[in-house]
Amino acid sequence: MKTRITELFKIQFPIIQAGMVWVSGYKLAAAVSEAGGLGLIGAGSMKPDLLSEQIRKAKNKTDKPFGVNIPLLRGDALDLINVTIDEGVKIVFTSAGHPGKFIDKLKKAGCVVVHVIPSVKYALKAESVGCDAVVAEGFEAGGHNGLDEITTFVLIPQVVDAVKIPVIAAGGIADGRGMAAAFALGAVGVQIGTRFAASVESSAHDNYKRAIVDSADNSTVLILKKVTPVRLIKNKFSQQISEAENRGATTEELANLLGKGRERMAILEGNLDEGEIEAGQCAGMIKEILPAGEIVRKIVDEYYNVVRKLH
Amino acid sequence: MKTRITELFKIQFPIIQAGMVWVSGYKLAAAVSEAGGLGLIGAGSMKPDLLSEQIRKAKNKTDKPFGVNIPLLRGDALDLINVTIDEGVKIVFTSAGHPGKFIDKLKKAGCVVVHVIPSVKYALKAESVGCDAVVAEGFEAGGHNGLDEITTFVLIPQVVDAVKIPVIAAGGIADGRGMAAAFALGAVGVQIGTRFAASVESSAHDNYKRAIVDSADNSTVLILKKVTPVRLIKNKFSQQISEAENRGATTEELANLLGKGRERMAILEGNLDEGEIEAGQCAGMIKEILPAGEIVRKIVDEYYNVVRKLH
Repeated sequence: MKTRITELFKIQFPIIQAGMVWVSGYKLAAAVSEAGGLGLIGAGSMKPDLLSEQIRKAKNKTDKPFGVNIPLLRGDALDLINVTIDEGVKIVFTSAGHPGKFIDKLKKAGCVVVHVIPSVKYALKAESVGCDAVVAEGFEAGGHNGLDEITTFVLIPQVVDAVKIPVIAAGGIADGRGMAAAFALGAVGVQIGTRFAASVESSAHDNYKRAIVDSADNSTVLILKKVTPVRLIKNKFSQQISEAENRGATTEELANLLGKGRERMAILEGNLDEGEIEAGQCAGMIKEILPAGEIVRKIVDEYYNVVRKLH
Repeated sequence: MKTRITELFKIQFPIIQAGMVWVSGYKLAAAVSEAGGLGLIGAGSMKPDLLSEQIRKAKNKTDKPFGVNIPLLRGDALDLINVTIDEGVKIVFTSAGHPGKFIDKLKKAGCVVVHVIPSVKYALKAESVGCDAVVAEGFEAGGHNGLDEITTFVLIPQVVDAVKIPVIAAGGIADGRGMAAAFALGAVGVQIGTRFAASVESSAHDNYKRAIVDSADNSTVLILKKVTPVRLIKNKFSQQISEAENRGATTEELANLLGKGRERMAILEGNLDEGEIEAGQCAGMIKEILPAGEIVRKIVDEYYNVVRKLH
């Protein structure tokens, strides 16, 4: 399977495992890369020292390319970038912020830089500062989300029409049907989060993985639009926030209700009542917890089956 | 092009023009049907007498199959159904309500009945009462919308997995890429609204058509989630509603702000400040006002081009 994305990363299949807090450590990233996709270590829940350790462990597990995802809103984003460069990682996905501040440093270190964007405007901005590709992520994606609520179905073709760099689709993709649909819309790669969050190698708590598998089509909700929009599986916590939002709570009240550490609580510690069970809408399509490599192979097989049937 | 949908309706291409208030009279429906798709007269903005007249005019314009869309929340839904049956229309799309109350009457009259649904639960319900197909319509669709905010990308495969009747995809589809993506996700037909709303034969005001063509990826918003969710192009009116929603306005306050006749104001009369400019997120992809038949042909050509390139 050869696309601009497999060539950019020198990988076998244009399937990227999203960097996810408390989920994508070296085990998951290495398993996806070993299977021919691109694994990403999610630095979002790591201090620089831990990131350094995780990169080393990933290198011990695979000789294939893998990358690091760095959320740029982190106060120590520069430290995370320095560690990534020092450890010799050559693929960096940036999100939640503007890559312009950091891209020169990354490019000088020989990194391929990909930025995650929720709309055409940010895609153009990423391209203009020199990003090598963009991940266009739709409203159905899990975790942090854009303000404009543009869905994968309409976002991908519009970003593809707007930029010359390759476009990776994200949001709502959990199987080979989704991959084929993303490619029909003009993407040349897919980034998949929730499906890998519920894999064997995911470092998340079993309760969290089970919550994904138990989801239906309408199990997730986008909350905190006034603070930072986040998609999660509905629970007691999301219900509290939704109620506050419905009565017109201020940004401050909402930030207080949110507090700190909600992601860790749900994803790492398995507290499904009080934590943020971040997941995409495609949770409803995920029926079992499989090894990450098997997920990659299944998606590729399904992709070819789907494409063969289109005429 | 042969799918379960072309066979169900005896049409050439599995492209259905959505029934839309103040947009899809006989001119648009007949033009789409003449081009080999399925045109629908939208009864939502018609009294029974006008619907009767529109059906007769459509018959004068085309010998090919066309249908009627009937929103079941209308107080006079039964009258609209009676008129449709009396005029000999054999294809009925129902939406906004439950078809169970009316389906026996329609089936006895020999009608093919298709219901529009926003989630798996309602798809199963439509199948269980005997509908011949469902339109699975995602969050990105224009006009009235479901409460669960499930996007086309994740809705289609889940509905396809849940029901045995054929699934028509709707929401976010404006070109052949979207059609190919919908088919990759398992749909066997597409229902397209906004693209046809901006066609030559659409009975909407030129200002309204122009508002669609002038849209960007982030031009629409879903408002009135507490009353009846509706997607429209952002304007002064939507801004007022959004502000009221942000400060926690009650359902009653919102209903008062909404008032009556907002759709007519924007779509038929061209008042882009005070009216509801209903449109889907794909408005950003629509760049010109073309004859409806040309739109059908373009979409089919694009579909084949896209599918040929997938491998």
